[in-house]
Amino acid sequence: MSMSGGRGGTERLVVIGGDAAGMSAASQARRLRGPEELEIVAFERGHFASFSACGIPYWVGGAVPERDQLIARTPEEHRARAIDLRMRTEVVEIDVAGQRVRARDVDSGAESWTSYDKLVIATGARPVRPDMPGVDAPGVHGVQTLDDGQALLDTLAGTRGRGRRAVVVGAGYIGVEMAEALIDRGFEVTVVNRGAEPMSTLDPDMGRLVHRAMEGLGITMVNGAEVTKLLTGDDGRIRAVATQAAEHPADVVVLGIGVRPETTLARAAGLPLGARGGLLTDLSMRVRGQENIWAGGDCVEVLNLVSGREQYVPLGTHANKHGQVIGTNAGGGYATFPGVVGTAVSKVCDLEIARTGLREKDARRAGLRFETVTVESTSRAGYYPGASPMTVKMIAEHRTGRLLGVQIVGREGAGKRVDVAAVALTAGMTVEQMTSLDLGYAPPFSPVWDPVLVAARKAAAKVRASAG
Amino acid sequence: MSMSGGRGGTERLVVIGGDAAGMSAASQARRLRGPEELEIVAFERGHFASFSACGIPYWVGGAVPERDQLIARTPEEHRARAIDLRMRTEVVEIDVAGQRVRARDVDSGAESWTSYDKLVIATGARPVRPDMPGVDAPGVHGVQTLDDGQALLDTLAGTRGRGRRAVVVGAGYIGVEMAEALIDRGFEVTVVNRGAEPMSTLDPDMGRLVHRAMEGLGITMVNGAEVTKLLTGDDGRIRAVATQAAEHPADVVVLGIGVRPETTLARAAGLPLGARGGLLTDLSMRVRGQENIWAGGDCVEVLNLVSGREQYVPLGTHANKHGQVIGTNAGGGYATFPGVVGTAVSKVCDLEIARTGLREKDARRAGLRFETVTVESTSRAGYYPGASPMTVKMIAEHRTGRLLGVQIVGREGAGKRVDVAAVALTAGMTVEQMTSLDLGYAPPFSPVWDPVLVAARKAAAKVRASAG
Repeated sequence: MSMSGGRGGTERLVVIGGDAAGMSAASQARRLRGPEELEIVAFERGHFASFSACGIPYWVGGAVPERDQLIARTPEEHRARAIDLRMRTEVVEIDVAGQRVRARDVDSGAESWTSYDKLVIATGARPVRPDMPGVDAPGVHGVQTLDDGQALLDTLAGTRGRGRRAVVVGAGYIGVEMAEALIDRGFEVTVVNRGAEPMSTLDPDMGRLVHRAMEGLGITMVNGAEVTKLLTGDDGRIRAVATQAAEHPADVVVLGIGVRPETTLARAAGLPLGARGGLLTDLSMRVRGQENIWAGGDCVEVLNLVSGREQYVPLGTHANKHGQVIGTNAGGGYATFPGVVGTAVSKVCDLEIARTGLREKDARRAGLRFETVTVESTSRAGYYPGASPMTVKMIAEHRTGRLLGVQIVGREGAGKRVDVAAVALTAGMTVEQMTSLDLGYAPPFSPVWDPVLVAARKAAAKVRASAG
Repeated sequence: MSMSGGRGGTERLVVIGGDAAGMSAASQARRLRGPEELEIVAFERGHFASFSACGIPYWVGGAVPERDQLIARTPEEHRARAIDLRMRTEVVEIDVAGQRVRARDVDSGAESWTSYDKLVIATGARPVRPDMPGVDAPGVHGVQTLDDGQALLDTLAGTRGRGRRAVVVGAGYIGVEMAEALIDRGFEVTVVNRGAEPMSTLDPDMGRLVHRAMEGLGITMVNGAEVTKLLTGDDGRIRAVATQAAEHPADVVVLGIGVRPETTLARAAGLPLGARGGLLTDLSMRVRGQENIWAGGDCVEVLNLVSGREQYVPLGTHANKHGQVIGTNAGGGYATFPGVVGTAVSKVCDLEIARTGLREKDARRAGLRFETVTVESTSRAGYYPGASPMTVKMIAEHRTGRLLGVQIVGREGAGKRVDVAAVALTAGMTVEQMTSLDLGYAPPFSPVWDPVLVAARKAAAKVRASAG
């Protein structure tokens, strides 16, 4: 085992994980400090760096024709900017006291220590894989990496001679996006979901709208069903997904049951983890209690600004922001990540699903009393062609009327409307204040009262009535 | 002349103007107070009440097939809710001291006084018509009322045997929307515009993008040109629009050069008007200095929350909000209209144009020093089908970094993005704070950094650099 140290007078920044958070941090640090001041070494155990995991469903579905379109920057491009990115090299130990990491070449198994002055942990997430027979059978796929995506595409191509039945396990973002991808590839799609309704990031009443709309798209929805077994045929390949109640024939199975923070290394190094297993950081994204270690992306927990609690929100958009903040700080500048309000948008075919802030159960858990309203409106003036219906649910704090959350289910033009609520949440606005927001209006863009304003008016009235 | 007074024990609310602001006020007051408590009389001089003037270009263009789709509520529907709406009846005098209005039946000329306890002035706007020969010739049209729209449609149909050349005078919202309508009807369209670039509600650099895009749509743009004469043929019909430099042949001319507050009555009654001729109100939309007179919609000036100055912004969305606030207050409740931030969206075919806050010249006029940035981004992840380019300009205050304004020009998905900035302006956010806004991200909805966030990052960096 060799040992490499920093050159005299030059600091060394080591980055563990070559995806969104890690490489954003490396790139931003490089913008602020040249190679003569700061050496940057980044380790990535996989075959790819800086790729868009969020784009995988669209590549699998065919909307994005080429895998390489999902690669934001190649290893060569990073190296050209004086970032020593070592692919297929896995960090297997962090020695915090010794300020060094032990890395292993995935192919040769050779190991070496690399010392650091500053460390960035961006180890991402690992998909949840149910511990049951058949989970490793051919035809059962996760969709977290580009390798996963390619394997799934190979399976889809291979089913041509056989059947075209796909079962998606899980009905969160990944599940519903994969349902769309498989429909686009001409499969009959069944979604098996443990919850009573799909999209557990919504309240069940809004999840029900998603449920109905997905059925309307020709997807078979099996809710309230726990997968008990993955059944294989004589050839060893997947043939069905079994729940307590039924067997669902499958030529391909996609697992979309979520991810957990990949913090094995951090845990072994004694770094602080939260209730959901993610690293805990301060507002500058520095690992709590550490002077020279930062962490960001899918391996950290973040502050929810509405509930005041830590939360696990593995999303590429946060990972990029974390990387930017970490790179600025590690490069000698100053930046903070104040937290999230819990915004997410997704779609299944032409169905758009959006949420921000707290669900009813989150609000209850945070000790808040609240009022809820649900309104039906349209994306454009009712008389304008293409006006599509949408349902907006709004949750406001009892008495104060402070906005707590918004959920939207609709068609074209529904999803990004949630951004108005995301900004209002960040600003701590009341629903009464929101009623006079000066939002863009013209018949092709909105009814004269934007759906979010309609909800705010109704919520404000309910808050007043209940406080009276 | 007869005189009608209120019934004993019942208050009477009189509304002048039966469109958005007036009828919203009447409806909201009725929701709060039944007919036994509050009599409501509304006067409308035209043939229609509660119609969407903003929808006229889409009816003229054919996207909205039927005129009646633009009518939100018929006079009969208002009357069924115990609102005594008197059509084709024009108020010709307000006697403030006597608490009464004099109204004239437009057809018979008969006049009568109606006393009021509370008065709402919602007289709207009148289109600017240039004072020049030919302005009343057949084939020259305004587009403010449904009658205007029908007359224009009749002219368009009548040109079938003749030419199909249309000239639009003015390149503001109405002008560009009418250019689209006329293209949709198969006309060759020329837009003659006094300003150096179209859309003077944008800075000229952003207006230039609109200019080029409109030319790309096949529209002939004549900028920096003052119309000097409207030339008619031997048949008396319009045949060309003359500027200092050229004659533009025209089979039809649409005047879209803006509107002014219709405050003739208010002026005669001695009520307070602002620098732009609109009525001045307090935050409850009560006319300044008056206890029992409210005003709203296109006849009032509103406070711009960013500049701290009164401004004239004739838009249906404000008129509806004003009506809601006035109706609440006149009905014995409490509501305020805090002001606007200057948001507007518009489109010409697939070109979307949006703005909020201050332009450079507004900021200068308000005594503010500022930094500006302009970024190019896309509506969706770059690799996702349908990702369309957009240009975002952001203006932030020097030193404090407070957001002052945003302008966006792009295609599908560009326009409503301005709402994020509208809420941020209302909340008084800095561009630095905006960089961590939790906006919805998924590849079909946005790049991983939303275009507004990209602009905010760049603006924040510029503010820091210039303050340093």
